[in-house]
Order: sequence, then C-alpha cells, then structure tokens
Amino acid sequence: MESYLQKRHQLIREDRGRRVDAIHGKKLSDAEQRADRIVRDIRAAEAISVWGPESQAASGAENALLHVFPGMEFLTARETILGTQLFKILSKMPKGALLHAHLDATVNARVLLRLALGQPALHVRTHEHLTANSINDTLPQFQALPEAQFSALTSLTDDAYIPDSWVPLQKARENFHESLGGPEGFDNWVVGALMINPSQAYGTHNTTYKIWKKFASTFIVSNPLIRFAPVWTQYVREFFMSSIEDGISYSEARIMFWSECMFGADGQENIPHREWFVMYNRVLNEVKDEMKRQGREDEFVGSKIIYTTMRNITCEELEWCLEDCLSLKQEFPHLLAGFDLVGHEDSLRPLIDYIVPLKKFVERQKELGIDIPFIFHAGETLGDGTAADMNLYDAILLDTKRIGHGFSLVKHPRLMEICREKKIAVEVCPISNEILRLTSSMPTHPLPVLMNQGVTVALCSDDPAVFGNMGLSFDFFQVLVASEVTGLTTLGEMARDSLRYSCLDTQERELALSLFEKRWATFIDWVVREESKGNAAN
Amino acid sequence: MESYLQKRHQLIREDRGRRVDAIHGKKLSDAEQRADRIVRDIRAAEAISVWGPESQAASGAENALLHVFPGMEFLTARETILGTQLFKILSKMPKGALLHAHLDATVNARVLLRLALGQPALHVRTHEHLTANSINDTLPQFQALPEAQFSALTSLTDDAYIPDSWVPLQKARENFHESLGGPEGFDNWVVGALMINPSQAYGTHNTTYKIWKKFASTFIVSNPLIRFAPVWTQYVREFFMSSIEDGISYSEARIMFWSECMFGADGQENIPHREWFVMYNRVLNEVKDEMKRQGREDEFVGSKIIYTTMRNITCEELEWCLEDCLSLKQEFPHLLAGFDLVGHEDSLRPLIDYIVPLKKFVERQKELGIDIPFIFHAGETLGDGTAADMNLYDAILLDTKRIGHGFSLVKHPRLMEICREKKIAVEVCPISNEILRLTSSMPTHPLPVLMNQGVTVALCSDDPAVFGNMGLSFDFFQVLVASEVTGLTTLGEMARDSLRYSCLDTQERELALSLFEKRWATFIDWVVREESKGNAAN
Repeated sequence: MESYLQKRHQLIREDRGRRVDAIHGKKLSDAEQRADRIVRDIRAAEAISVWGPESQAASGAENALLHVFPGMEFLTARETILGTQLFKILSKMPKGALLHAHLDATVNARVLLRLALGQPALHVRTHEHLTANSINDTLPQFQALPEAQFSALTSLTDDAYIPDSWVPLQKARENFHESLGGPEGFDNWVVGALMINPSQAYGTHNTTYKIWKKFASTFIVSNPLIRFAPVWTQYVREFFMSSIEDGISYSEARIMFWSECMFGADGQENIPHREWFVMYNRVLNEVKDEMKRQGREDEFVGSKIIYTTMRNITCEELEWCLEDCLSLKQEFPHLLAGFDLVGHEDSLRPLIDYIVPLKKFVERQKELGIDIPFIFHAGETLGDGTAADMNLYDAILLDTKRIGHGFSLVKHPRLMEICREKKIAVEVCPISNEILRLTSSMPTHPLPVLMNQGVTVALCSDDPAVFGNMGLSFDFFQVLVASEVTGLTTLGEMARDSLRYSCLDTQERELALSLFEKRWATFIDWVVREESKGNAAN
Repeated sequence: MESYLQKRHQLIREDRGRRVDAIHGKKLSDAEQRADRIVRDIRAAEAISVWGPESQAASGAENALLHVFPGMEFLTARETILGTQLFKILSKMPKGALLHAHLDATVNARVLLRLALGQPALHVRTHEHLTANSINDTLPQFQALPEAQFSALTSLTDDAYIPDSWVPLQKARENFHESLGGPEGFDNWVVGALMINPSQAYGTHNTTYKIWKKFASTFIVSNPLIRFAPVWTQYVREFFMSSIEDGISYSEARIMFWSECMFGADGQENIPHREWFVMYNRVLNEVKDEMKRQGREDEFVGSKIIYTTMRNITCEELEWCLEDCLSLKQEFPHLLAGFDLVGHEDSLRPLIDYIVPLKKFVERQKELGIDIPFIFHAGETLGDGTAADMNLYDAILLDTKRIGHGFSLVKHPRLMEICREKKIAVEVCPISNEILRLTSSMPTHPLPVLMNQGVTVALCSDDPAVFGNMGLSFDFFQVLVASEVTGLTTLGEMARDSLRYSCLDTQERELALSLFEKRWATFIDWVVREESKGNAAN
C-alpha cells in the first residue's frame, strides 16, 4: 500500500505539473500555507452550511434556489454569495489586473443612472405607451440633446404622452406614474433594461443565441448615456475607483470605437476618438493624484485602452479603424494597449474574413515602428468546428498576445500547446460564460482543463454592469468554490499572471508585481490573524 | 493570402491529428466520401428546418420545446429526433459493440412490464393508498411469491386495500381504478417509476445529486421484476434482439452481482450466480441459432458479462465478490469479460478504499493463470479534485482496460496521455451524462476534448431503459449533431474502435471487424443510393 500511495502521489504531481500553482510554486511561506488551509476549511464548511441541500439557501422561499450547490447559477446565487465568509475574504484579496472588460459595461447600472440624472441634457423616450403590461417589453431610449432642443414635457407616463417624444430624464423619473412604481419604478425599469435577470438567463432566454439578444439590447440602451462626454468622464472615474476598491490595481479596458464621435456637453455628436483618449488620460491622472493624497498610491498602477470595433463591419470599414488605431497609438503610445474585434462570434463575421486588412495593419506597424498587439476575442462559443470555434486558429496565426474567452480552446490540443510555447494567456470570464449560457454553472466550466494543460489564465469580469459581478471577487469566488484543487494560493498565482501577461511595459510590470507582493503579504497576514482571533473575516 | 491559408490548413491538420478519423483515416472510398457529404448536408438542413429557432419544433405548443437546438436535452427532443432524416440514417448504421450498459436497464420499460404480466407469481403492493394525489409519489413494489403465498386480492386501488399487502400483478392492472386511468393508468404509473421524465431531469431534480436519487429508485422498482428467472431469461433475450435490431453486433453487459441469488420460478430466492451465467449463455446460443436460421448470423457476434458489485460494500464483502468472480471466470472463461464497481461515485466509496482487495485479486489471477481485466467506472462527476474525480488515478494505476464514463478525464493531461500510450478506451455515455446532469446538453459535453486529445472513445447507452435511448442510434445522433468536425465516417471509426477495444479475443475480434466492414460497405452504398433516388432515408 505504501508503494502504491507513493506511485499515486507521483502520478497526481505529474498530472498537475503544468498548473500555475505548480509552475510558479515557489516555496510557500508558513503564513501562505496557513491561509490556504483556512480558506479550504471555510470552503468545506460553507459547502454544507450555505450550499448543501439542507442549507438555509435551499429552504428559502424562491423556487430557483431549490437547487443550491457551490458554483451554482450566479444570478440566483448572488445574494447568498454576499453573505459568505469566503466572499468576505476574497473581496479583500489583491486581484492584480483586470484584462478583459468592456468599458461600457463596467459601472454599476444604478450608478450610471445616478450620473445620468445629473445631466439636464439627457432625455428619454419610449416607442409605446408605458403600461403595467407593456413596461417589461418596452426599452427606454436615451439621448443627449442640445439646449435649444430641450423638451418641456414633464412625464413619460401620463395619458397625453405621444410615443417617441423626448422627456427630460429627471422629469420622467420624478413624474413616473404611481401605478408603475413612481420614481423607484422608473429606476427599476431602467436598471432592468441595463442588466440580465435570472428569469431571462435561466428561463425565457436560456440559449446562447437568445441571451445574446437580451445582452446586446443592454448596450443599445446604455450607449447614449455613457457616450455623453460629461457622463463618460465620471463613468471612467467610477470604473477606476470601484476596481481599486475590489483590489484591482491595473486594467485594460476594451473601448468600442465603432462610432466616430461621442456626444459633447453641447448635445452635439462631436467628440472624436483622440478626445476620448485625452479624457481617459485626464481621469487616470486625477485618480492617481487622489490615491496619492490618500496615501494609497500602491493600490493603483494605471489603466490602458484596447481599441475595439465590431466584427460585423466591411473590410473597408476595418481599414479605416486600423488607420485610426495607428494614429491614436502614435499620439498616445502609453495608453493604447492593443486591438480587438468584438460582438457575438456565433452570428457575426469570423476573423478569416478580415485577414487581408489585419495583415496589412501588421505591416503598417513595422513601417511606423510601433507595436499594437492583437488581443482577439476567439472561441467564445459552444461550437465544435464552427466559424466561431475556428476563430482560434486565426487569432493564433495572427499572433494574438492573449485570447479573449477562448471558451472552446480546450478542444484544441495543438493550440493549447502553442499557447504554452508562445506564452499566450487566455482571458477567462467565468460568470460571463455562465450567464451567456456557454456553461450551465461553474462545475461544468472548462477552466480546470485549461489550467491543468498549463495554459495561462487571467480571470476577468467581461461586462459586470450587465451581469452584476462588479470587480473580480465574484469571479474568483465562483472559480474557488467549484474546485477542490484550486486554493487561495492558486488564485494568488492567477492574479500575478494577470499582471505578467498584461500590456504593461517591463518597468511598469516589475513595479506592479512588486506592489502586488507587498499587498499579498499583508492580505495573507490578515487572513491568518482574523482566523486566529477565532473570527475569520468578520 | 494563399500562403496564410496553407499555414492555416496545416495548423488545423496538426490540431486534429490525433482524432480517430485522422489516425485510422485510411483513404476513404468514393462512396464513403459521398455518404459523409450527404449526411453533412442533411445535418446542415435539419439544423435549420428541425432545430432552428423558426422550426416546427420551436413553434410547438410545449413550453419545454421553446428552446430548440441541435443536441438539446434528449428527453425533450426525443420525439423530434425520431422524425429526422438523420436519425433514420443512423438507425440503419452498423454500430459495432455496446461496451457500457447495465443489464438491468437495457430493455424498454413497457416490454419489461409485458414480460412481468405474463408471470402469475409476480405480485405488486404499495406502502400507501393510491389516489390521484399520491400516485406520482408512490412507487410500486414488486415481488415473485411461491405459489402457496399467491394472493387472492384483486385490486390495489379499491377502498378495502390494506397498504403493503400483495396483489397479483395481472389483477392489479386489470382492476386499476378508473379514476387513476384503469389498466392504461397502471402501465403509465409503473413505467413512470421505471424511467426518468423531462420534468424530473430538467425541473424538480435538476442537479446530479437529485437526479441520482430518482435514477437509483428506478432500479429498486425494476429489480424484483428482472431478478425473477423466468423474466430474466426473456429480458436477456430482448436485450440481445433489440440491440441487434439497432445494428449492435456485440455487447458487454454489466451485471450486478450484489445479491447472491435471484428468484426462481418457484418464488424462492435460490438461483446462484453460476446459474445466471448458464442462463445467459443458453439465451445467447438460442439467439445465435435463431439469427442463423434467419440467415442473419453476421449481425450477431455475441455478448459477454462484466461482473459488477456496488461501490458501497466493505472490503470484506468485496473480497467475497472477487473470489466469486474468480470461480465464475474459471467456469465460464469466455463469458466473463471483466470486473467493475458501480453506483454514484459522488456519494459512494472511492476506489482508493479498495486497493488492498483489488491488488490481491490481481495476484490471485496470476496464481490461477486467468485474466479478468478491471473495467472501472471512474470520473463520472463534475468534481475537480474530489474523490470521484480522483478515482481516475486509481483506475489507471490499477491498469483498468477501459474507463466507464471518464467524464472528468479531460481535466487530466497526464492521464489522457497514459490512455493513449496504454490504449485505454473511454466508454462515453452522452445521453446518460446529460440526463444525469453532468452536462446541460450535447454542445457542452467534453467529448470533443477527449477525441481531439486522441483518447479512444466508444459511445455507449448506459441505462437506456431508464433514459429511453434504446440501442445506440440516439447517442450517435446526439454526438453527430453537436459537432461540425465529426461526420459519418468519424462515427464509423468509433464503431470500429468499440470492437477493437472490446474484450473479444483476437480471433473473435478479427471476425467481428471483418463482418463489420461488410455491413459498413452495404450501409454506405445504401446511403448513397437512397440519396441518388432523391429520397434519402425515406
């Protein structure tokens, strides 16, 4: 038996030898080993007390909660997660970098609404009369108007309202009809249009295609609010601040440059892309200054922009975008981190359609002596051998620096090998994948396959404003509870990798990593100290 | 672009180089290429006409069918599948071997009930009064009684019925109360207790733990019907005949030897294991003779038994079973194919608990000069690093010949490598995995990962009487529609592998494979001919 156990131990070690915790596994400190053990014990206890069939959550009134288990559907589990000790610990953990998030979906929907309500230029309208029957199927349309066109209407919901006429946002809210819930009903209506709810994800829209329709509609609703410069700058600031609060020290935000201008304070669509960069940079410096004033400069290393456009445009349109991207890179070399194409891979155009302009883009960079890595979305699909799945081949042949999602990458042994050889990291978005119905819950997510194959993974939130997974704590939580192999030290290594595989330059990266180590040590000490107080994480 | 496409083609070829269709990919005949193309075209057409959002199925009245897609939940899709051209083709395809099926769940539940109704010794009772309210939660209990104990009761449902008293099965059916549907209501009640229905799998029992409770209960209900020798022999015959009708030429049935005896015609529990083998062998020879009489001997190569017991017994009990298995192997060397432990891996004992007796079993075989390969269930779980997942390490360290399920094998790079090196095939049961909630539907099943890693796969039905996936056509169908890479020729190679990795001896295997090739060629010609008639598969 002794020799059997030895052989078994050796086999397990070989099998897990490519995992991030084995590769980087420097000798763990005593404190790290203790913290890891503490977290495993809490996870095991909560697997029964919180997620077991006899738990409080299971006996709750809501039907959807009848099936509780660790890593269950996020939208149903969210409130329960918030009450766990494990989540309290993870929310204090330094997360490293957020490498995959679409800027337009990074700020809490209620905060966005609050920001919008501060702007007299913003108006709202509906295409139909709002009634108790129609409200769930009727989306609010927003727009910033020039002062000359400000509307004198005061209600969106009185009988006299003529569909498609603009009402000032604040008035529409103030006078939202009592029968629809008054101002609070207004907020819920708007937030409902900006987010995916459980009955959509797990009921009415329970396929990747259907949930993508709802998902896309949230961007259509939020776009005119966010792409209004006075809101946008505050929105970016909120994104930075809330990320910092969750322990994210650096981010690379994907920004959609599909429209050529955003709306300015004057209600005209006249703010070109370069101004977006100027504004982003200004907010970045303001936040850095503020963190410094608070003595917290170690918590924020910075943020860069990944230029993105939609994967439904023509090659000619793409060429324009790529030239635009080149000139922005020349003007803002430290701010522009990479290029990507976004949108629903299963229904839009595959990368193979764009090879010629994309190759030309690489040539142009050489001519100009600049470097804009591709950071492509690829394989965000359940397809096996479909165009969306095949995007992985093209992303890799085009030398993508990282892969966005790569959900179907686990099907491709040679591509995983190349990812290891060429150090291509995968931006895995667990909660996004689950809500967008690529996986029914975390235990069925292919993440462990990737990790055990030695493919570098950075956990990401993707569109937290739509999903409700603000920060990275929720995604780290869902990953941690769905595996017995992964522990706190594994999450720490993944956080380090998010910095290592970022677009920070060498010097920035070294700094970011050394700051991370300081915070990590403090965090580990805190976990151990809280537990030894017999009072972990309370 | 030319050179890009060349590089891309090469990369795809490398990536898919370990697939069964690449490895065995002898040059395909013209007919095979045509048949493969025909099937791909039908699949593409039906992906829209049958499984598209605008299809008939989608517009059907039943809510559950609102989400239709290729590879969707089997229990909801079953009727729709039966109407497809693709299914008609696959039902004619020669399947090779069925390597993973639990004998007690291999015969259509209605057929089992019919067989049972022919036996006056069989009785039924309930623990509660059956009413319209209680019927769905009350299971029938069956038992064969000795003639002296035959019951004179005539109804299970009249007011005078005293719970727990036996009623002759035929009488209970005949006089089943009108308000419960009469005899037809009786049949539906019994069949409902023997099968899993969609509202259980996808509603009330929608987790692996919950559905296993229902699943296990079906065996408790069917056991006394099947383990009655006069039924058992007919049951085995039905298993062989229905398998043959679906194109299965050989099977290895897992038989549960947990109880020491089954009931004989005299209503006594007095038929020992060796008699089971004698009966199995007799039926086998009868069916062979009958096939010969029909000039169809090429369609049936034979069947063997995998000795199984429950993975909840003590080591002492296991030792008894293993000795039992050894003596059966000595008496029936050609009939006993292997040894396995079965039951819910997530809740029962892991293999590591049984290492000592299992190792001793191997030693005993050497002493006796016999060979009984382990063919272990392992990794039938969503766990990552749980005891059930870790069963894979032990199965492999114990030199398992094949792996039953291996659902979590995709997480283990070293173990997949060993499977390739040591030629360990995995018995993948797609529909079983889906109904037992390891995967929400076929597109999320990890099968493509295994296939692309070059792990040999045999598709299996597991417990078709409970799931309704009789034969192998349904499992082949679900796999085929969920991938654009897999084609008809891939399925053919998988069918060949099922014979190659069976426990047939060399000579038997060669024969089975050569008979398969003959039937395969006929099948391919039929596909091509039907299509050229403009009338494929009608």
